[in-house]
Amino acid sequence: MVRDVTGFRFSTACAGIKETGRPDMALMMADPPARWAGTFTTNQVKAAPVRLGMARLEKGAPLSAILVNSGNANACNGQRGMADTLALCGEVARLLDVPEEQVLMASTGVIGQPLPVEKMTAVLPALVDGLGSATLEEVAKAIMTTDRYPKWETAALEGFPNVEMGGVVKGAGMIHPEMATMLGFFFTNAGLSASALHGITKRAVEESFNRITVDGDQSTNDTVLVLDNGGVRETGGLVRAVASRLEAMMKTLAYKIVDNGEGVTKVVTLQVEGAETPEDARRVAESVGHSPLVKTAFFGEDPNWGRIMAAVGYSGAKIDPEGIDIAFDDTVLVSGGRWKGKEAERAAAGVMKKRDYTLRITLNRGKAAWRFVTSDLSVDYVKINADYRS
Amino acid sequence: MVRDVTGFRFSTACAGIKETGRPDMALMMADPPARWAGTFTTNQVKAAPVRLGMARLEKGAPLSAILVNSGNANACNGQRGMADTLALCGEVARLLDVPEEQVLMASTGVIGQPLPVEKMTAVLPALVDGLGSATLEEVAKAIMTTDRYPKWETAALEGFPNVEMGGVVKGAGMIHPEMATMLGFFFTNAGLSASALHGITKRAVEESFNRITVDGDQSTNDTVLVLDNGGVRETGGLVRAVASRLEAMMKTLAYKIVDNGEGVTKVVTLQVEGAETPEDARRVAESVGHSPLVKTAFFGEDPNWGRIMAAVGYSGAKIDPEGIDIAFDDTVLVSGGRWKGKEAERAAAGVMKKRDYTLRITLNRGKAAWRFVTSDLSVDYVKINADYRS
Repeated sequence: MVRDVTGFRFSTACAGIKETGRPDMALMMADPPARWAGTFTTNQVKAAPVRLGMARLEKGAPLSAILVNSGNANACNGQRGMADTLALCGEVARLLDVPEEQVLMASTGVIGQPLPVEKMTAVLPALVDGLGSATLEEVAKAIMTTDRYPKWETAALEGFPNVEMGGVVKGAGMIHPEMATMLGFFFTNAGLSASALHGITKRAVEESFNRITVDGDQSTNDTVLVLDNGGVRETGGLVRAVASRLEAMMKTLAYKIVDNGEGVTKVVTLQVEGAETPEDARRVAESVGHSPLVKTAFFGEDPNWGRIMAAVGYSGAKIDPEGIDIAFDDTVLVSGGRWKGKEAERAAAGVMKKRDYTLRITLNRGKAAWRFVTSDLSVDYVKINADYRS
Repeated sequence: MVRDVTGFRFSTACAGIKETGRPDMALMMADPPARWAGTFTTNQVKAAPVRLGMARLEKGAPLSAILVNSGNANACNGQRGMADTLALCGEVARLLDVPEEQVLMASTGVIGQPLPVEKMTAVLPALVDGLGSATLEEVAKAIMTTDRYPKWETAALEGFPNVEMGGVVKGAGMIHPEMATMLGFFFTNAGLSASALHGITKRAVEESFNRITVDGDQSTNDTVLVLDNGGVRETGGLVRAVASRLEAMMKTLAYKIVDNGEGVTKVVTLQVEGAETPEDARRVAESVGHSPLVKTAFFGEDPNWGRIMAAVGYSGAKIDPEGIDIAFDDTVLVSGGRWKGKEAERAAAGVMKKRDYTLRITLNRGKAAWRFVTSDLSVDYVKINADYRS
C-alpha cells in the first residue's frame, strides 16, 4: 500500500468528466476520522461543494473522506448543484460506512454545467476499493485542470520523528476561470486539536495562497483543507513546528501555482518595504502586482519604472513619491523617486531576462512590509483565454 | 482667423519633443480671461503641471492660457519638474503680457525624463504669434501621443443662439502609461459663474471620463479643464443647458478614448441595473470591466458567462447569485443565475462579433444602476505594451 502520510489513503479514477481520458476524480480517506480546518473562497458566487464545506466546518464534525473532481466546478447550477453534491457525498459515506456529515466534496472545472452524476457514481466503488493505491502525486494529477504539472509536497518534522505531513494543490492562478480554482488538501498525523489547526491554517493560507496572483480573478470554488487524525498530544513546541512546516509547504506550493500558470513566462516576487502599515504595503504590492501595464512590461523584459511608480501612486497607500526606491534583485533603478540612469537600466533589464526575480519597492515611510508573488501578462495568456472555449 | 468657440484662440507647433516630427505643442488662449473649473488625477504620483494646476485652481485666479505638450509627461522629475513648468508658464505669460498665475501647463508622454525646455522655449514666440491659426482638430492632433485619431467636438446650444461650446481630448485609455494620460480641455462663452462651472464640471466628468477603462491603470497626468469667458449672465435654464451639453460632449469623447485605444477591438458598454445602491452597481461594473478574463473573452467573442458571474461575485457588491440576469444587447444568456441554453449562447456569440455592444447585468435587488465603458484585452494590447520601449 502506498503511504505518503500515515492515517490517510488515496485513490484516483477516470470518470470521463474531462474529455482527455485522464483521471478526473480522487478520493481521500482519513482513517481514523480527522479534525480539520479550512478556508474557502470569499467570492459571493460559491459553488455547491464550497457551500456544503462551509456549513459542515461550522458544525464541527470530524472528516472521513473528501471526494474531488476536475472538469466541472458545479457552480451556478441552482438547487440541482447542491442536490448532486449531497447525493455523491451520501453515496461515498454509504460505501465507506461512515456518517454522511463526515464526507465532503471539492470540484473544479467548467461553471454552469450540471455534474455528470451517473458517470461519477459509477466509479465510486472503484475509488473506495482502490483506497491506498494512489500516491499524492497521482492525486495531484487527477485534480489538475489546465495545470502544467502536478503539485504536491511531503515533509518530515524535525524533532518529531513520528509526525508526517503531506499536501497536494491544483491551480493555474485564475488563468482559466471556468477551469480554474485553487484547491489544496493537507494531511498530517501530528495530533493537533481542531482549534490549533484552525489558527495555523488561517495564518499559513494568509502567508501563502493569499499572496499570489496571476490575473486577480477569484474563483467560485477555492478551497484549502487541513486534516489531522493523529491522537491529540498537543504541546506548544509541536504546534509551532507544524505551523512553521505547513506554512513553508503552502508557500512552496503557492509559488508553483503561479509558476505553472499557462502563459506565464515570469514569476516575480514583489517585496514592498518601508510602509507605514502592513495594509499599506499590501495595497502597493497588489496594485503593482495586478497592473496590466506592469505585467506586460515584465513580459517584455522592460524595466519600465514609470508604470511601477504610477501603480504605486494609485494604490491608495500613503506614499511620498520622492521617497520611493525601486530595485530588480540587487540592481537599484530608482532612488528617491528618480531614475538612476542608463547603466542601471541596462542592469535591471538583465535581471528581467531571468524567469524568477524579486522586484523590491521601498517606500521609506515606516517599517511594514508585504510579499506578493505575481506573474507577467503574456501574449499566450490572452490567446489561451480568448480561444479557450472556441 | 479660425474660430471654433468665440473668445478662444489656438495654435500648434512642432518643438521636436517627439521624434516623429509631428506637432507636439499647443497653446490655447482665453481672451478675455476665463473662469474655470478642473479635475485632476487622484494618483498620488502627480506630474508637476498637475500640481501647479491644482494649486492655481485653489487660488481662483482667472485663466488666460494653457500650454500643452505631448511626448513628455514631466512626472517623477523632482524639483526640476516644477521649476521647468514654472519657467515655461512664466515665459508664456511674458509673451502674452498676462499675469503669470493666469497660465497653466498640461503635459503627456514619457515619465521620468526632464522636459527639453530649450526646444520648447524656442517655439513659444511662434505659438503666441500663431494664436488663432489652429482649429480644435489641429490642437487635438498636437496633443496626441499613441491616440489613433484626433478627438474633438463643437456644439451649439439649443435655445441659446449665441452660446458656443467646444472640447478637445487626448487619451488612449491607459494603454501606454508613459505615453498615456487623459487630457481634456473644454471651452465656452456661455457666461456661467465659476461656482456653477465647478458643479457641472464635476458631475460631467463623473458621468463620462470616470466611467471608462481600458486597463484600469491611472495616469500621473490626467487633467480636465473647463473654461468659460462669456460675460456672466447666469440663469437656471442656461446652467442646465450647458451642463447637459457638456456632459453629452464629454460622454462622446470618453467613448472615443476607449474606442481609439491601441489594441482595442471591442468597445463594450456595461449597464449594471437592479443594484441596492449606485455604489454597488459601480462595484459590479468595475469588477467586470477590469477582469482580464472577461476582457479576453470579449476579444475571443466568447459569451463566457461563468467569468462574468465570478467577477460579479468578487465585486464586493450585495448580490444574490440566483437573482442575476445577463444579456448581450437584447439576447438574454443568463436568467436567475442560470444558463439559458445553447441557442441563447449562439445568439450572444453573434452579438459579440460586433465592435460595439451592451452587456447588461441585472442584479434584481433594487433600483440603482451604473454605466461603464470598457474594452477587450487583445493580443495586440500585450504586444504593444511589451514591445513599446524595446
